[in-house]
Amino acid sequence: MNRPMQSVDLEVGYDVPAAIGMSESEIQTPCLILDLDALERNIEKMGRRAREMGVRHRVHGKMHKSVDVAKLQERLGGSVGICCQKVSEAEVFVRGGIKDVLVSNQVRDPAKIERLARLPKLGARTIVCVDDVANVAELSAAAQRQGTTIECLVEIDCGAGRCGVTSTAAVLEIAKAVDAAPSLTFGGIQAYQGAMQHLECYEDRKAKIDIAVAMVGEAVDALKAEGLSCAIVGGGGTGSYCFEGRSGVYNELQCGSYAFMDADYGRILDEHGARIDQSEWENALYILTSVMSHAKPDKAICDAGLKAQSVDSGLPVVYGRTDVKYVKCSDEHGVIDDPAGVLRVNDKLRLVPGHCDPTCNVHDWYVGVRAGKVEALWPISARGKAY
Amino acid sequence: MNRPMQSVDLEVGYDVPAAIGMSESEIQTPCLILDLDALERNIEKMGRRAREMGVRHRVHGKMHKSVDVAKLQERLGGSVGICCQKVSEAEVFVRGGIKDVLVSNQVRDPAKIERLARLPKLGARTIVCVDDVANVAELSAAAQRQGTTIECLVEIDCGAGRCGVTSTAAVLEIAKAVDAAPSLTFGGIQAYQGAMQHLECYEDRKAKIDIAVAMVGEAVDALKAEGLSCAIVGGGGTGSYCFEGRSGVYNELQCGSYAFMDADYGRILDEHGARIDQSEWENALYILTSVMSHAKPDKAICDAGLKAQSVDSGLPVVYGRTDVKYVKCSDEHGVIDDPAGVLRVNDKLRLVPGHCDPTCNVHDWYVGVRAGKVEALWPISARGKAY
Repeated sequence: MNRPMQSVDLEVGYDVPAAIGMSESEIQTPCLILDLDALERNIEKMGRRAREMGVRHRVHGKMHKSVDVAKLQERLGGSVGICCQKVSEAEVFVRGGIKDVLVSNQVRDPAKIERLARLPKLGARTIVCVDDVANVAELSAAAQRQGTTIECLVEIDCGAGRCGVTSTAAVLEIAKAVDAAPSLTFGGIQAYQGAMQHLECYEDRKAKIDIAVAMVGEAVDALKAEGLSCAIVGGGGTGSYCFEGRSGVYNELQCGSYAFMDADYGRILDEHGARIDQSEWENALYILTSVMSHAKPDKAICDAGLKAQSVDSGLPVVYGRTDVKYVKCSDEHGVIDDPAGVLRVNDKLRLVPGHCDPTCNVHDWYVGVRAGKVEALWPISARGKAY
Repeated sequence: MNRPMQSVDLEVGYDVPAAIGMSESEIQTPCLILDLDALERNIEKMGRRAREMGVRHRVHGKMHKSVDVAKLQERLGGSVGICCQKVSEAEVFVRGGIKDVLVSNQVRDPAKIERLARLPKLGARTIVCVDDVANVAELSAAAQRQGTTIECLVEIDCGAGRCGVTSTAAVLEIAKAVDAAPSLTFGGIQAYQGAMQHLECYEDRKAKIDIAVAMVGEAVDALKAEGLSCAIVGGGGTGSYCFEGRSGVYNELQCGSYAFMDADYGRILDEHGARIDQSEWENALYILTSVMSHAKPDKAICDAGLKAQSVDSGLPVVYGRTDVKYVKCSDEHGVIDDPAGVLRVNDKLRLVPGHCDPTCNVHDWYVGVRAGKVEALWPISARGKAY
């Protein structure tokens, strides 16, 4: 249940896929491995980028769901805190020592609201999004009952088509209600354009964020005219953060995938037409898989199927190989085209998953490797924290 | 880590999505709920079907990954044991009290082979599949080291295109090697046609199984001529079990999905052209989800996205409703078309997931409901047991 680990012997292959010090070839598959060198470089680079643009970085914890990774992002990347999407995720991060947490989502269920309102008692700045004026009274009542303060961002739907209001008038109405509500603080605006992050072409992505920046800028100005200043104007993802970062309107980025990367993000292009997994970010996350059958000469069957990944954004890519290709995914197996018959049973392959977030969500552990050895074993602390 | 639960207070919303006795409206979402009446009827019906056809039923535990459901299948459905796909799953089932386990897959990693060979010491009949004669010596050596006996089925690829040999000569070669190997027993044949289960048309499915039955029958006869009898000729899934069951060749079915059902299986047709979720099996598994935002009048946003399900076989279907439709799935949200604006924030909906197996694999708990009340809370005991 992802409670803090006690001092118990963990059985490799049953409780955990690896042990510290083990060589990569001994890791039990399928499992997630992190290239720690690449991960650290990605985190440091994004920290530098944010500083250079003069904005803060609140990393998105819903990608990795790991207290250990969040702390690495604080230490190496200078992140100011985390975003997450669920109250139960926020609870894991706060119990794990993260002191500044934004639930970048709506919280409407009465029991969840009450749990959210308790978070500040654990020592964490607690921020949440609001897109319905009716939610203001619910949050205020819970914070009053708990004797805490919740900071509220008004969420703008700037193109993702999910939660969020779409007019400045609605932003103002909710912001004023928050400002007037006991035990709530108006904190600013949440405006993440989730629908454009994976557009391949740089100019297409820029065009979408130009629209978002115009919407958000208008709202910020209107709020200012009413005497309401935005401590946080937050948004931006791996496919867009430069646009928000340089906009002069946003002041907090919320990137997640940059740290691990995945095949789908890897395919998008930078302003010079280069794939960002070549020009900007290194792939740090892999599904380690083993060949378990090669009964047909041109097909290798590996042990990473749908239970080891999400294929919503396409099949995984075999890392560093052009001679073999992952072509089909069933529940428990992956079919790998091996036309020259180069693979052998028990050969291990690194797969770059199609989509990092939901792939991390099916595993319990990150196995951190460096120079061919297992250096870290991190629980995916908030996995399963969806309700 | 899914060790047996100790006597601790579980916090609803953090550790668990519900508490026994709670009304369905209080369950924390998103989570999986099981309609216990429907589940029990499905299990009893499949038990009757197998008995009527004169075959055994070895239920597939890789679908539900739950010791509790497996025991219900023994008690109500007369199942003779379980199949699963991983050694770590088998360990969970055996430690949980299941005494007859088939790993319906290849086991090639040395550490996994050693763990498999230890399973009989925990009191379980242990069966595994083989599709490579080189594996025979590996399994035999491990069983000798452990002082145990492993039963081996030769796996035939009868159309799924994954593991398994494709000629009777290869079946004979492996079977003879098993028969001659110390500490191994030749147990028969594994032949599951996984690729045809979801074909919509009954006659198309029958045609594929006719091919499989012919292949398997030839192998069984050839083995018999060599003095090797097949205690187990196993295969069959929810979309095909009647064909294998009546074939006179197979003697063990391996159905999994029938117990829970899903949207993809629900769409396949029986011999009279009726959907099998109307004519044969009841949907027992749902993702319970809540509306969390309705900022746009014609779109409701619910809390079940990619972290709550797998969409490899299509989007979920809103159960019992024709006025609203789940149309888009992102990491944390589902977009529901609500043209008449009938949904309200905090309304709960039952979603029928597209594909049960990988959807169950992202959750930690089954919440069993009957007559609107929570009656059972079952850990998904083998979730995460992939390596």
